[in-house]
Amino acid sequence: VIQQLEGVQKSEQLLTQQRVTKEFKTERFEYSEYERRLYHTKKRMEQAGVEVLIVSDPADMYYLTGYDATSYYIPQFVIVAQDEAHPFWLGRTMDAACAKLCVFMNHTHIVGYPEFYIGDPSRHPAEFVAQWLRERSWEKKPFGVEMDSPCLTPKTLELLKQGLPNSTFKNTDALVSQVRMIKSAQEILYMRQAGVLSDLAMAQGLEHYDVGVKESAVAATMYGSLIRGTADFGGDDPGGITIPTGIRTSGPHLAWTDEPCKAGEAMNVELGGCRYRYSAGLSRTFFLGTPPQKLADLAPAVVEGMAVAQAAAVPGATCEEVEAAWRKVISRYGVEKGSRIGYAIGINFPGLTWIERSFSLQPGDKTVLQPNMTFHMMLGMWQEDWGFHLSETFRASEQGEAESFSTLPRKLFVKS
Amino acid sequence: VIQQLEGVQKSEQLLTQQRVTKEFKTERFEYSEYERRLYHTKKRMEQAGVEVLIVSDPADMYYLTGYDATSYYIPQFVIVAQDEAHPFWLGRTMDAACAKLCVFMNHTHIVGYPEFYIGDPSRHPAEFVAQWLRERSWEKKPFGVEMDSPCLTPKTLELLKQGLPNSTFKNTDALVSQVRMIKSAQEILYMRQAGVLSDLAMAQGLEHYDVGVKESAVAATMYGSLIRGTADFGGDDPGGITIPTGIRTSGPHLAWTDEPCKAGEAMNVELGGCRYRYSAGLSRTFFLGTPPQKLADLAPAVVEGMAVAQAAAVPGATCEEVEAAWRKVISRYGVEKGSRIGYAIGINFPGLTWIERSFSLQPGDKTVLQPNMTFHMMLGMWQEDWGFHLSETFRASEQGEAESFSTLPRKLFVKS
Repeated sequence: VIQQLEGVQKSEQLLTQQRVTKEFKTERFEYSEYERRLYHTKKRMEQAGVEVLIVSDPADMYYLTGYDATSYYIPQFVIVAQDEAHPFWLGRTMDAACAKLCVFMNHTHIVGYPEFYIGDPSRHPAEFVAQWLRERSWEKKPFGVEMDSPCLTPKTLELLKQGLPNSTFKNTDALVSQVRMIKSAQEILYMRQAGVLSDLAMAQGLEHYDVGVKESAVAATMYGSLIRGTADFGGDDPGGITIPTGIRTSGPHLAWTDEPCKAGEAMNVELGGCRYRYSAGLSRTFFLGTPPQKLADLAPAVVEGMAVAQAAAVPGATCEEVEAAWRKVISRYGVEKGSRIGYAIGINFPGLTWIERSFSLQPGDKTVLQPNMTFHMMLGMWQEDWGFHLSETFRASEQGEAESFSTLPRKLFVKS
Repeated sequence: VIQQLEGVQKSEQLLTQQRVTKEFKTERFEYSEYERRLYHTKKRMEQAGVEVLIVSDPADMYYLTGYDATSYYIPQFVIVAQDEAHPFWLGRTMDAACAKLCVFMNHTHIVGYPEFYIGDPSRHPAEFVAQWLRERSWEKKPFGVEMDSPCLTPKTLELLKQGLPNSTFKNTDALVSQVRMIKSAQEILYMRQAGVLSDLAMAQGLEHYDVGVKESAVAATMYGSLIRGTADFGGDDPGGITIPTGIRTSGPHLAWTDEPCKAGEAMNVELGGCRYRYSAGLSRTFFLGTPPQKLADLAPAVVEGMAVAQAAAVPGATCEEVEAAWRKVISRYGVEKGSRIGYAIGINFPGLTWIERSFSLQPGDKTVLQPNMTFHMMLGMWQEDWGFHLSETFRASEQGEAESFSTLPRKLFVKS
């Protein structure tokens, strides 16, 4: 069945590939790495005139403390203060038990609020947090709050302000996201491993994909690959796969159905292996049978566009220059893409996106590429009733073009 | 290896079980069901003195329109107005393509905002939404906003208010969650199917679980079962499984690691099959080898507590009475549970919890059980360095005790 897949590495080959070292630490990150992250966070806090930062984005909380639990459906916070070397974790008492098993700080920096605040709309955990901040005599210090971050609701902020009536709150939105922009060697290692998981899942999904196979079965295969991983490492919950087929390929964010895959239809796969919460996005389009001419024509144009944009993504280039390189290629084919072609990528918790809010590959973004900035170049070409897409996750390297975390061929995968 | 699992239905048996009808509609819900949902939403809006409701919780958006895409990492809204029969969907233009394939409304009720608002911190989709609301001449109508709902940030609300300076905004938090409380026959069908997926995944996970098997491999097996499902239906992304082992069983919300499962250790599994986004939570504790006496003693006490609480969950009983029934049993064993024993459950999008914010099984909650209210009774007993848990999803029935969506035995599953 996969005779037409010349150039595809079979999943067995991927499993034995040696491009990721087997020697990684049992502990995810050294203490010195947390120190560095806090140093840069506090430096940005100082520039913003903030002495106490209230962090609610689970990705930021993980980055600053190591806290890794799926408890972010209720209010929880990390507090970074200029006059404290280490941050504090504040959350529900039952999750304080999780924090003890994750965070690098001494357990005196883990604060659990009582169950009293849960499940009753007349009470709210933010009341506890405000009181705790008052008791630490931080009331007069200028607070920083990320006003557009996930998991901070207007109600939570309102109650914090009510409980701290003499305090000032500055919007420090995306402050930690900026610190996260340049990855450490250890983070790059995990993203490379995530890239292996992505390649493996794409290859195994493609092997399973066929006429009459249920979309849900293809999705199940991919999830299994992403989590089971290789003999050396498995993956975290990837936080979603999108695999629209047929007319559904006209939109980006649709999941599978129970319908069988049909001849004459495409499947647009977007997935991301996730290693210690670090993600590597990857997209390919599959087709069963003979693709229509418009799709067969578009695919190589997008492939060429990615190669040219990758070549343009050298250290010192701006984000908008990378996009311009792509645009120059694709417009030669009479095609337009109305949306950005990429964004910063890193930590991912289910439902919260792997996108970092530090830069985008789009006109107007003058962020300069530096080594170990990572981005997901997502060339999604959604048309009226069909679509094609191609994406990979890249690292801006020390010199020359960006390094991809995928080794899969760039092409429309046709199965006949 | 599973000789000690007397009473466990093997996954093959589950696959052929006939407790869920094969005849369900291709379309998820009839138009009349959306009409009923909107009718009750508008009734509550009227009671709250609200003429235009701004909805941002993806579960509410799905409930009111059918919109089912994982695009909620960027701002998107459903607007329900008293003077419009049907709601409006507002979101990113590329996701408008997804909306066209999901929502029940005419496509004139799908509004895409331009990419201009994406990836640039100086611009924000809320500016577009405020302008659109002004242009519809709704500026003078009282708005309702769910101030503590997921996916609404303080920044978004601030910009809505800035763009509608002459408008009033009332907090209508959890308004739609209240409407969602009593399930329709169709919703119950999907939750029963979700229950089948949960049982299947738990049974297949247990079959795979053994000394030396990596935790990530057990997780991969469970994800595969939850999504691949049965010959009749598969499942959606379950939005997370937690399977802490060993000392990690002292906390509720921890994922797997790459460590092999060890003799003398427990694994606390919490998962939830997800059918058309409707979830059925299910928890069991597994043990390899001979469990310590404290665990062997606690398990039957919790099992007894669940049976007694289930028997108390009759229509007309209050939520706190159900909890009191449990408490009476468990305190006889000298054990305390410091947190609620359950909560309303229904629609689940990854990362956003399956919890509905309408009632909890806890002291002080005087909500009266009515037929087709659904709840996840979660008896999590987290101790200093170990834990046991047992949970099932129930439907309050027309008479007598609540109906469970699980057919698995209630016990500590010991594998020797």
